[in-house]
Amino acid sequence: MNNTPIRLLIHGASGRMGQALLRLAAEDASLQVVAAVVRKPPTQRVVEGIPYFAASELAGVPAFDVAIDFSLPEGLDPVLALCAERGVGLVSGTTGISDAQQAALNSAAGRIALVWATNFSLGVAVLAELVERAAQALPGWDCDIVESHHVHKKDAPSGTALTLGESAVQGGAAPRYASLRAGDIIGEHFVQFTGLGERVELVHRATSRDIFARGALHAARQLAGRAAGRYRVRDLLG
Amino acid sequence: MNNTPIRLLIHGASGRMGQALLRLAAEDASLQVVAAVVRKPPTQRVVEGIPYFAASELAGVPAFDVAIDFSLPEGLDPVLALCAERGVGLVSGTTGISDAQQAALNSAAGRIALVWATNFSLGVAVLAELVERAAQALPGWDCDIVESHHVHKKDAPSGTALTLGESAVQGGAAPRYASLRAGDIIGEHFVQFTGLGERVELVHRATSRDIFARGALHAARQLAGRAAGRYRVRDLLG
Amino acid sequence: MNNTPIRLLIHGASGRMGQALLRLAAEDASLQVVAAVVRKPPTQRVVEGIPYFAASELAGVPAFDVAIDFSLPEGLDPVLALCAERGVGLVSGTTGISDAQQAALNSAAGRIALVWATNFSLGVAVLAELVERAAQALPGWDCDIVESHHVHKKDAPSGTALTLGESAVQGGAAPRYASLRAGDIIGEHFVQFTGLGERVELVHRATSRDIFARGALHAARQLAGRAAGRYRVRDLLG
Amino acid sequence: MNNTPIRLLIHGASGRMGQALLRLAAEDASLQVVAAVVRKPPTQRVVEGIPYFAASELAGVPAFDVAIDFSLPEGLDPVLALCAERGVGLVSGTTGISDAQQAALNSAAGRIALVWATNFSLGVAVLAELVERAAQALPGWDCDIVESHHVHKKDAPSGTALTLGESAVQGGAAPRYASLRAGDIIGEHFVQFTGLGERVELVHRATSRDIFARGALHAARQLAGRAAGRYRVRDLLG
Repeated sequence: MNNTPIRLLIHGASGRMGQALLRLAAEDASLQVVAAVVRKPPTQRVVEGIPYFAASELAGVPAFDVAIDFSLPEGLDPVLALCAERGVGLVSGTTGISDAQQAALNSAAGRIALVWATNFSLGVAVLAELVERAAQALPGWDCDIVESHHVHKKDAPSGTALTLGESAVQGGAAPRYASLRAGDIIGEHFVQFTGLGERVELVHRATSRDIFARGALHAARQLAGRAAGRYRVRDLLG
Repeated sequence: MNNTPIRLLIHGASGRMGQALLRLAAEDASLQVVAAVVRKPPTQRVVEGIPYFAASELAGVPAFDVAIDFSLPEGLDPVLALCAERGVGLVSGTTGISDAQQAALNSAAGRIALVWATNFSLGVAVLAELVERAAQALPGWDCDIVESHHVHKKDAPSGTALTLGESAVQGGAAPRYASLRAGDIIGEHFVQFTGLGERVELVHRATSRDIFARGALHAARQLAGRAAGRYRVRDLLG
Repeated sequence: MNNTPIRLLIHGASGRMGQALLRLAAEDASLQVVAAVVRKPPTQRVVEGIPYFAASELAGVPAFDVAIDFSLPEGLDPVLALCAERGVGLVSGTTGISDAQQAALNSAAGRIALVWATNFSLGVAVLAELVERAAQALPGWDCDIVESHHVHKKDAPSGTALTLGESAVQGGAAPRYASLRAGDIIGEHFVQFTGLGERVELVHRATSRDIFARGALHAARQLAGRAAGRYRVRDLLG
Repeated sequence: MNNTPIRLLIHGASGRMGQALLRLAAEDASLQVVAAVVRKPPTQRVVEGIPYFAASELAGVPAFDVAIDFSLPEGLDPVLALCAERGVGLVSGTTGISDAQQAALNSAAGRIALVWATNFSLGVAVLAELVERAAQALPGWDCDIVESHHVHKKDAPSGTALTLGESAVQGGAAPRYASLRAGDIIGEHFVQFTGLGERVELVHRATSRDIFARGALHAARQLAGRAAGRYRVRDLLG
C-alpha cells in the first residue's frame, strides 16, 4: 500500500458538509486536507493544522490530488476550472446547478476524472446497483419505491428515490413511488419487487448525515489517479 | 420466438411438488408435460391429458427436453442416468442425496446441462446474487442473516440462509445467523449490512409454496438447449 | 369448560368465505355447523355430515346459537330477521350493504348480540386497538399508514387502512395514507408513529385468506351468550 | 395551564446524559434547571444561567420540584435522601445499582413519587404497553423479540428487550429472543406475534440518544405533583 496520503482541497469548507468533511478527513491517515476554501476571507489562516483560503485566493492554493466541492451553484465553476487546469479529480455534491454547468462537467470529464452526485452514501450507491440487477432478473414483477424523510423536506419523491427509480427502469421495471414525511427521519429508501407468492425488498436506512461526507471522501480516494471521465458514485464502489 | 413448447418429464409427480409442477405447467403454453412418473404403477394411464408412467417404466418414456425431479434420494439415480443417456437437461430438487450422488451429478454435468438446488425460488436466487455483490461493495460492514420459518422446521439456520451466507462470504463478509420459528411462516430471509450511520437490508418473503415449482419450471425453460454443465439457479436468471 | 359445542348456521355457504368457514369449523370441536344455507336448492341434502338448506327454506332451519353470514347484500335481511326472531347472535361480513341495512343492524342490536365488519382478522382488530392507544400516548408524533394489496384491488386506501386511521384519529393523531398495489399480496398494513429521534411501527401481515374465516368463527364463539348489542371485532378479543 | 415552570435539579450534570438534559431543558419553557450537580467542585459557578454545585454541596441546593439523576451508583443514595427529605419527586436512570438501593427506592416511594428505569424513551414505554396488550389478545400466538444494537454493546438480550419480554409474559406470551450487534445502531426492538396466516409486528427504532433525555424530562414533568409511589415510564405516558 502507498503511504503517501491523498491531498484534498475542500471547497465550501464552512458549510455543514464542509465541516463534516474536515472532521472525518482528520480521522483518516490516508487523507490530508491541504486547503479549506471558504467564501469570505478566513479570520484565521490555519485552524487545527489546516490552511484556510478565501474563494478569491483559489488560484494560489497548493498542489492537491482531488477537490471536494459542496458549495453553492456559483462556486462550482471556479473550482471546476481549477481542477481542469491542474489536471486533478473533482468530487462535487453542490446542488441546484444549471444545465450549462452539467454540460461543463461533461466537457471537463474529457480531461479529468470527476463525479457529481446528490447523494454520496455508499449504501445508496450499492442499492442503485442492486435495484438495477433485481429489475433485470425479475421481469414482470411489480416495483414500488417508498421513501421517508423529515417533515421539512419539500420535494417528493426524493432525488435519491428518482435515481433508484432510474436504475429500476434501466433494468426493465416500471417503478411507482410513495413518499412519507415524518419526524426527523434522515432518509430511508425502500424498493420492493413483488412477484406471485414472493417478494424481494431492498432497503437503505440512513441514521447519520455523516454518511454523505464519508461517501464523498471515499469517492475522492477512488478518483485519485483514475482515467478522465464522468463517474457515478456506483462506479467508484470497491 | 419459438412456438414449439418445451417437453417436460416430471419425476416424482405424485408428491406435493410434483402436483404443483403439473398444475402450473398446465397453465403455461410454453411447456408440455409428456410424462409424469410416479413410483408405483399409476391407476390411470392418462389424467387430464398427461400420460403417467411407473418408475419401473422409465426407460420407455417418450422423447422430452428436460426432466424435473422432485422425488426421493433413490429416485435420482435412474432419472439422472436417463437424462445422461438421452443427452437432455435435468432439474432436480430432491433433498437428502448422498455425496456419491453429488459426485454423479458433477460427472453427468460433463455431458448434460443440469441444476440441483434446495430452493428454486427466483427471488432467493436473485437475493443470493445481490448479497454477494453487496458484501463485495461494502467491505468492513457487519453482515447479519435472520431467517424465519414455521414452527415445524427443525434445522436452523435454514439451508437457504446458509446459501445466502456463502454468497456473503464469497463477497468478503463474515455473516452471523439468527433463526426464528413461528406460526406457519413459509420462509423469510433477511440479510442486513450495517456500516456507520447507514444500513442496507436485503429481504426475501415467500407467501406461497408455489414459488418453488414456478422456479423449477423457469429453470427447466432456461436449461433447455444450454451447454452441458452444472448450473446454480442464480446462473439461470434472466 | 362447557363441552356442548356452539351450534352455527353458515349463511352464504357456497362462497369462498362460506367454504373456508365450513372447512375450519369442521376442525374445531367447540363448533358444530347445524345448517349450511345456499342461495339455490342444494343438490345434496347432507355433505360431510352438514345439512344444507336453500335460502328459501331459512325459516325451517334447526335451532342454532349464532349465524355467520357472508352472502350478498340482499341475503343479509332474511338472516338478520331470523336471528332477531330466534334471539340469537349474528356475525356478518357481507359487504356492500346499504345505510338502511346498517340502521336495521343497529336496531336489531337492541335485542341480539351482533357484529358486522369488513375484516375479521384478529390481528387487524388488535392492531386497531394498539393504534388508538399509541396515538393517544404519543401526542404530536406523525402518523403514516401504508397498505399493500394485490394488483386487482381497486379501492385505495383499503377499508382496513381507513379503519386503522379512524382508530388513530380516536387517539388524537392525524394519519396520512399511502397505498401499494403489487403482485398477489393478500394484505399488509403498516402504521408508523414518528417522533424526534425515535419511531414506533405497528404492522399486520396477512399470508392466508383463512384468517378472515378464522376470525369470524372466533367472533361467533365470543358472541354466543353475550348481552345484546352491536360489537366491533375489537370488542370480542380475549 | 400553569405558567410556572417546573424546577429541576440535574444530578450527574457533567455526564453525556446530564449534558443532553441541560441542553434540551434549556429549549423547554415549561422547565427550569435550578441546580446542576457535578461530582467535583465546578470551575464556574454559573454556566449559561444555570447554577452549578458540587456533590458535596447537595444539602444547600435551592428549592426544586423534581430531581433527575443520571449519575453513578454511589451518587444515587444522597440524591434520593435529599428528595425524600424535601418531599419532591425523583427520576433516576442511574444503572448498576444494588438490590439494597432498589429496596431504598421502594421504601422512599412510600413518601415521594419516583421512577427508576434503564430506558426513558417514550416510544419504548408505549411499546411495552402495546406488547402486553397484544400478548393478552392473541393467546397461543408465537412471540419473538429481536433487538439490534451497536457492536460495542456487550449484554444480550438488551435490558429493554428483557423489559419488553416481561410485558409479553404479563400478557400471557412466552417470548424468545435474538440479538444482533452491528455497526453503530443506537437501538432497535422488534416484537413479533405470529399466528396462522397472519402476523403482528411491533417495532421501536431509536435514531438519536436524545430520546432518553427527552423521555426523562417528560417523566419529570409528569411526576411533579403526583401522589407518592414508584412509577414505571409506562405509567407516566399521556
